[in-house]
Amino acid sequence: MKDVQNLLAEKNIDVAFFNSTENVFYLSGFYTDPHERLMGMFLFKKSAFVLPAMEVDQLQGTGWSYDSIGYYDHNPWELIEKKLGTKLIQSIGLESEVLNYKRSESLLALFPGSHVSFLEEIINPLRVVKDENKIATMKKAAELADFGVEVGINTLQEGITEMEVLAKIEYELKKKGVKEMSFSTMVLFGEHAGEPHGKPGNRKLKKGDFVLFDLGVVLDGYCSDISRTVAFDSVSERQKELYDLVFSAQAAALAESKPGTRIGDLDKVARDLISNAGYGEYFPHRIGHGIGINVHEYPSMSHLNDHLLEENMVFTIEPGVYVPEVGGVRIEDDVVITKDGYKALTAFPKELLVVSSKKH
Amino acid sequence: MKDVQNLLAEKNIDVAFFNSTENVFYLSGFYTDPHERLMGMFLFKKSAFVLPAMEVDQLQGTGWSYDSIGYYDHNPWELIEKKLGTKLIQSIGLESEVLNYKRSESLLALFPGSHVSFLEEIINPLRVVKDENKIATMKKAAELADFGVEVGINTLQEGITEMEVLAKIEYELKKKGVKEMSFSTMVLFGEHAGEPHGKPGNRKLKKGDFVLFDLGVVLDGYCSDISRTVAFDSVSERQKELYDLVFSAQAAALAESKPGTRIGDLDKVARDLISNAGYGEYFPHRIGHGIGINVHEYPSMSHLNDHLLEENMVFTIEPGVYVPEVGGVRIEDDVVITKDGYKALTAFPKELLVVSSKKH
Repeated sequence: MKDVQNLLAEKNIDVAFFNSTENVFYLSGFYTDPHERLMGMFLFKKSAFVLPAMEVDQLQGTGWSYDSIGYYDHNPWELIEKKLGTKLIQSIGLESEVLNYKRSESLLALFPGSHVSFLEEIINPLRVVKDENKIATMKKAAELADFGVEVGINTLQEGITEMEVLAKIEYELKKKGVKEMSFSTMVLFGEHAGEPHGKPGNRKLKKGDFVLFDLGVVLDGYCSDISRTVAFDSVSERQKELYDLVFSAQAAALAESKPGTRIGDLDKVARDLISNAGYGEYFPHRIGHGIGINVHEYPSMSHLNDHLLEENMVFTIEPGVYVPEVGGVRIEDDVVITKDGYKALTAFPKELLVVSSKKH
Repeated sequence: MKDVQNLLAEKNIDVAFFNSTENVFYLSGFYTDPHERLMGMFLFKKSAFVLPAMEVDQLQGTGWSYDSIGYYDHNPWELIEKKLGTKLIQSIGLESEVLNYKRSESLLALFPGSHVSFLEEIINPLRVVKDENKIATMKKAAELADFGVEVGINTLQEGITEMEVLAKIEYELKKKGVKEMSFSTMVLFGEHAGEPHGKPGNRKLKKGDFVLFDLGVVLDGYCSDISRTVAFDSVSERQKELYDLVFSAQAAALAESKPGTRIGDLDKVARDLISNAGYGEYFPHRIGHGIGINVHEYPSMSHLNDHLLEENMVFTIEPGVYVPEVGGVRIEDDVVITKDGYKALTAFPKELLVVSSKKH
């Protein structure tokens, strides 16, 4: 939290209001989602935590040392005004992508005439760099994602549906204590895998299908995200070509993953390779995204991103090629930048696997 | 959509901007969630749909008959300005609880000096009243929730953990094709059920425990939400007392569920009954919430709500009493108001069930 306070001082922001579950968790260690009810932290020259009264005890259990403003049915903004005092505040910061219009009106009314800054500029660059403990947690989350892929592959048999495989993956993960997937699990067969926005359904598995898995879990507040593609029973030359292309594109982006590389270049090396092979139009998304408390977070790993990679940044690398009818291939790892290269957190093998159609 | 346009005219709103996945789905039938990317509908004197370019085809497949503004990497607000034209617009409406501060700045910059209205006031009262088709969909979603409770009860055995039961419930529902639970499934044993914010974990089932289930599914865009509490192997007098109290409180609120009743009175009759029995402090939440495209939506069924029930409103009734150490009981149904009473959509039996500890 000291880092943030120093940056607020540097940027001449007198009071910051953080109200996303994710940033509040990042800053305080307190994870809470009171849904439509107001919750948030005021930080710096005035500090206080506002939240539903029945959560105050839990907050205090986490070691929060400033004021807390617990409210019942009444208007929390009136309480905030009384508690904080708003004199001498000339500049406030808010989460511009999270705070809704209605709340921004209430907030700005407390600090009339104040200059408004966006806190994303301060907090996002801090969040992308993970410390050792967070990386260790994300490694465990990645191992559970590896396990999910393994369960999925072991469940494949002719005639099974996408939803049945998906159900089995989540079942085994939840039995291991996983409370939340980091996003809706994807299991796509054949031509479904060839749609970049395919959704799992009752499509039955046939010999010769590609099977695309994309899944992840939340562990102690941190996310994992893996994609693997396997062939079922047999693989055509065309499918092999697609697989090798995506495999090479991912390898090329991984090879550039080290401190000092321009982020946009990871997308570029993979995209150039895919485009030169004639499949440019079939790679319709960016190469990856930051990952941490949110499964998608800063930075966007698009070709437009001019920032440079730094040690301990964590993000995904996930090129994909989707050819209607033929099928699609995506290979995705969670990657942490090391002193002179990278380490992949997800570790499920990436060589093209042709899953036997014999019953297990 | 005509209803909304008429209301916009009545309220002198020239242009409305809807950008929540839920309201866009309600108004257009197009369900999309492009996450951090801008998506929304401008409606009335100027109408257009703004969305990522790769989704334009899907939108047009749903029968959208106005302009669409598909964007790639560039700034969508510039395209909106060009396409819409903003002259003669004096009054705009926005989703005040959804539109974020940053986007509200971009939106308001397009219509400088316009009067701002909150669209929730228009759309929420429309959404709470469901037509026949929506009620039929919600009935099917409720039947799946009933099934989830049944699976959970059949899975109970001594020593099993909350997460194992939860995993089995979701597994069986997903095998039936359920793609999404409407919220994080709750399975709580013993003293865990006695915490209003208990979370499922590795607590093992013991004889004499209360087991509290709270779960629901999303079906064709509509949610269900059920809670049931059962006893495992045996039940104490104190537990019976708690159960009967909550059962009676729910019955009392159901008895008042008919057109013309003040919404707040449903909470009041249940709360009075619980308070008179000396358990008022152990019923820390409102009696229920509207349910539909969102699992929690308008109206809030709190004692403060002065609106009156109308035919075809759908909401939950879910009194609960949570006594630390002893355990908790919550009984929840999804209810639709009929011409002269109510019909419960969820139908799992509510008489106190003592589940045998013998293996099934």
